[in-house]
Amino acid sequence: MIYLDNAATTRPDPAALGRAQRFATENFFNPSASYGGGFAVSSEIAAARESLLKSIADPARFELIFTSGGTEADNQAIFSAAKRGNAVTTAGEHAAVERAFNELKNRGVEPRFAPVDRYGAVDGDALFDLIDEKTTLVSVIHVNNETGAVNDIATLAKRVKQKYPRCLFMSDGVQAYGKIPVRLTQDIDLYSFSAHKIGALKGTGALVKRKDLALSPLIHGGGQEGTLRSGTENVLGILDFAYAAEKKFSALAADAKRLAGYREMLWGLLDHALLTRLSPENSSPYILTVSAEGMRGEVLSRMLWEKGVVVGTGSACSSKHRFSRVLQACGLKESVLDGVLRISFSPETTEEEIQLAAKAINAAVKEFKEKL
Amino acid sequence: MIYLDNAATTRPDPAALGRAQRFATENFFNPSASYGGGFAVSSEIAAARESLLKSIADPARFELIFTSGGTEADNQAIFSAAKRGNAVTTAGEHAAVERAFNELKNRGVEPRFAPVDRYGAVDGDALFDLIDEKTTLVSVIHVNNETGAVNDIATLAKRVKQKYPRCLFMSDGVQAYGKIPVRLTQDIDLYSFSAHKIGALKGTGALVKRKDLALSPLIHGGGQEGTLRSGTENVLGILDFAYAAEKKFSALAADAKRLAGYREMLWGLLDHALLTRLSPENSSPYILTVSAEGMRGEVLSRMLWEKGVVVGTGSACSSKHRFSRVLQACGLKESVLDGVLRISFSPETTEEEIQLAAKAINAAVKEFKEKL
Repeated sequence: MIYLDNAATTRPDPAALGRAQRFATENFFNPSASYGGGFAVSSEIAAARESLLKSIADPARFELIFTSGGTEADNQAIFSAAKRGNAVTTAGEHAAVERAFNELKNRGVEPRFAPVDRYGAVDGDALFDLIDEKTTLVSVIHVNNETGAVNDIATLAKRVKQKYPRCLFMSDGVQAYGKIPVRLTQDIDLYSFSAHKIGALKGTGALVKRKDLALSPLIHGGGQEGTLRSGTENVLGILDFAYAAEKKFSALAADAKRLAGYREMLWGLLDHALLTRLSPENSSPYILTVSAEGMRGEVLSRMLWEKGVVVGTGSACSSKHRFSRVLQACGLKESVLDGVLRISFSPETTEEEIQLAAKAINAAVKEFKEKL
Repeated sequence: MIYLDNAATTRPDPAALGRAQRFATENFFNPSASYGGGFAVSSEIAAARESLLKSIADPARFELIFTSGGTEADNQAIFSAAKRGNAVTTAGEHAAVERAFNELKNRGVEPRFAPVDRYGAVDGDALFDLIDEKTTLVSVIHVNNETGAVNDIATLAKRVKQKYPRCLFMSDGVQAYGKIPVRLTQDIDLYSFSAHKIGALKGTGALVKRKDLALSPLIHGGGQEGTLRSGTENVLGILDFAYAAEKKFSALAADAKRLAGYREMLWGLLDHALLTRLSPENSSPYILTVSAEGMRGEVLSRMLWEKGVVVGTGSACSSKHRFSRVLQACGLKESVLDGVLRISFSPETTEEEIQLAAKAINAAVKEFKEKL
């Protein structure tokens, strides 16, 4: 099997999971327990927290809270930060941000959505035009999960803070963390990411926040995570997350360079008569989104599954809708929206897999075309 | 090691984890993916959902949503059900319910707490006296996590519904599910429970709800769990949960009977001159809470850890406070509150372990006493 749907989820890294496994066997204690076993687990969580935080931010300025995933981290940030006035985001957000912004309407906060360009990157001027004195939060996805388009969040955040220093700036970093270089600047208040996109288990995520920023918890209870996120910690998930991240960061630049090469190699090998590239040239090295115009991405994805090649059809999370909301916002026409395939890589992806995948994709679109 | 802190967390059952492991290795697909691998994982989640639900409720009347744990399930239920007027609960709740009820104040809903008896069970008449026409939710913990006292939720719910048919009734079943016989009656609207208390992994829980009850999601996004709980499913955690529950339910009555015997055997072997029993006679078979009056439970627990016997000091989740809020509500004096030890069993607990634990506990309290 050639697995190229790593933006949907990744195969858990066996080495990281192997290291973390002891937290599901002998070290299973509740980290809140007041005896040796509890302290030991609690210390390991603290080390994991520090390691994950340090990978992208200065621990003197930022802190990290563990959540059940990227979606919860986004929701926690948005509902805590946007309590009055209006909140501004982009038309290129993951559903976790988009649905939470729409929910703000029920809470007396006006959500505003800035348009995106044809690749899904936000139009910075249009975003800025939506912000005013009553804006409490601006949220911009770091790497677009459907096209791989990268938003320059450091520059956007700086521009927001220069004019509106009290407005909070957050970014959903789920497709960026552990994949492209990230360093949180002082203008970024909140940053969310997920374990299962970087070779760890589903069910764990993180929200990095500025240390001096007060948050209202989304989930109340036993006071874990400095009272910001209650509930017994998902110890196995947290440790696996940290171990997988360690591995990712140890080769981040080299992986990104190699995968950018593979992305271009794959595009070069694909049948340009039948496939259009939707990802920009300077997208995340981890994502190449194309469209087989007039065909059905879902059908192609199933045909490819039968051939042992696994690719997605856009955001797995929005698979209940015919068209991708985000790609519609890119201004693509329906015949293009129907044929979307998202091919997404991992550091385990090999050159041979790229070549075999290209052949399989070309064969599938040809086969589909002939049946039309 | 003799592990008797199973009310805090349990050792993940190796057989259940072994069965679930493939969802962290070959079957790692995103359940929302629209190809074969995604469908296969999605079907397994559906089967796990049905199996867990059927174990305690009629699937024609109830449905189950997966959450990140018992705390999230409690919060989801409370914030969705208590939106106006007042909400009534007991002084014997876990922090997940108690803190969420206190948060209701910030949302314009008045929380009311009914007193408990000396064992932590709610006073039904006092609870009923707090309910009025403006009560939107009544929440009663099924098994008290600090004493094991069992509340008769079916009778309480029936009484509430007879007078106030529109008032919702929920119960935190974290210490009951998979341990004592539970069958949700038509008067119970919401019931929460957790995976890691029954031999599965930390990071998964469930909320069972009446099918015709509309909930507002706590976490918004990709629309998983019928839009009620977004975020990529914790697939490993969910399957492990179902497999561990299957095992629990296969021997629930026999386990409960045997452990009730062990609980009494342990109490019989303990030094009654130095230890007072806090759990009632008819408590959950899984919990025996005692107090070494005038001593420090935390210190005893650490001394016992050194001797290879692991017992808790009350709710692990409230270990940051000197006294347990719940045991204070039972009317216990400070010298008793200081010396609390919660000894909690699992089906793996053996008679030999009970005998060795009794000896170790008696020795520890004697040793502590001599140093006073």
